[in-house]
Amino acid sequence: MNERHTRNRIYVSEEEQELVKNFPILLAGSGIGSVIAECALRFGFENITIIDGDLVEASNLNRQNYTEEDIDTNKVDAIAKRLLSINSKANIKCLDLFLTLENVSEHIKGHKAAINALDFSSPVPLIFDTTCQKLEIPVLHPYNIGWGSLVTVIAKDGLTLDTLTKPEEEFNEVNVVKYASSYLRFWGNPQQWIDGVVEKYIAEEEVLPPPQLSIASWSVASMCTHLLFNIATGKKFKQFPEFYLSKIIDDNL
Amino acid sequence: MNERHTRNRIYVSEEEQELVKNFPILLAGSGIGSVIAECALRFGFENITIIDGDLVEASNLNRQNYTEEDIDTNKVDAIAKRLLSINSKANIKCLDLFLTLENVSEHIKGHKAAINALDFSSPVPLIFDTTCQKLEIPVLHPYNIGWGSLVTVIAKDGLTLDTLTKPEEEFNEVNVVKYASSYLRFWGNPQQWIDGVVEKYIAEEEVLPPPQLSIASWSVASMCTHLLFNIATGKKFKQFPEFYLSKIIDDNL
Repeated sequence: MNERHTRNRIYVSEEEQELVKNFPILLAGSGIGSVIAECALRFGFENITIIDGDLVEASNLNRQNYTEEDIDTNKVDAIAKRLLSINSKANIKCLDLFLTLENVSEHIKGHKAAINALDFSSPVPLIFDTTCQKLEIPVLHPYNIGWGSLVTVIAKDGLTLDTLTKPEEEFNEVNVVKYASSYLRFWGNPQQWIDGVVEKYIAEEEVLPPPQLSIASWSVASMCTHLLFNIATGKKFKQFPEFYLSKIIDDNL
Repeated sequence: MNERHTRNRIYVSEEEQELVKNFPILLAGSGIGSVIAECALRFGFENITIIDGDLVEASNLNRQNYTEEDIDTNKVDAIAKRLLSINSKANIKCLDLFLTLENVSEHIKGHKAAINALDFSSPVPLIFDTTCQKLEIPVLHPYNIGWGSLVTVIAKDGLTLDTLTKPEEEFNEVNVVKYASSYLRFWGNPQQWIDGVVEKYIAEEEVLPPPQLSIASWSVASMCTHLLFNIATGKKFKQFPEFYLSKIIDDNL
């Protein structure tokens, strides 16, 4: 194991480290994706593609992996610079574009796992998932719920997120969060704070992007890196409609 | 709320954001502390002191907040530069020194919460805690157990970590991890992977620093930021001998 990864010993074998290094991952969206990318790179994922057409805004700095200097520049250029400063030998491929129904397939090809951190304002994120399924690429969906984080994995032969949508309803992130909350309540682990947040968000006068905290960005990055390791090394992981939740709010108080 | 923190809305009120901003925190140790610092700063903690006399090594890059350019430079200078690039108006005080029995008290004064991320190779970390107790400053103890992270809080009138030590035994991080594992087993939530890691670590031929992964660094940063918020805003939190554990390994598989 090279010097950089000596402290991964015991947890990660030499063979696993090599598998991880050569396992190409695709980050679709460099918002929460920017935090996941750094955690995964440090762990040892050295083949990373990131796609996003957005610019960095000041309001991203509360939770995304950007600096003041990056404001008004391309997200992918900024995150590429950061990742290469951490590991100059990594193979970081950054594409300054938005995925569309036309180009989604060509950009997914060649990767072995994907993270769908796209805005749910078009049908693209759902097409992204079904395209990955056809190509047998598992897709991680990370959600920032402020105090807690949620990750679910769409597997090649599993259910897709649009099964959460009622007829004639448009799919969005709030569906997933509501679903997670009702799932937890059903299984005897109610998270009332989630319902409270959803209620306040829906009641907002202006239609704004959902609020998000660094707390959930950091724990989502942790969970996604662990899941990518499990996928890369052929270990088990839960699939949608099951999901992973990480939070300390109300923990046995 | 200023532009930077607009996406904290719903979760964090204007009053709470102001409390957090002006709440001075002390990071003793800039190893895992370097990751906690960034998550806390982005959330809104703008008064941060970091103390560490170490230099950055290549083997830190698998989990700490440093870049290749930082290797062989002072950890505190490197982390100060990173934090100020994220928020140039933050009050970041960095001290390039090691805490000793003589200077620990003067450096703790003036802070309202502390994070004890010191090496447990001397009595300083335990004196750090009792000094904080006298000054009524809660102390967070973060532990990186690779796949999972552990945080416990030493409160002003609570038990201290040396209660885990048998007579004539020296205190170290392994005691805390073993304690957490037996606590979880007792309460019906056994984590056999922790025992496996401890066993392998103790059996190593060379005496090496414990292995650590980015996965636990990122989730520790998330938990510590949440706990700092609870402390700054007068909310409840668990105290040692209780602790927080975050992990997805073996989650209901």
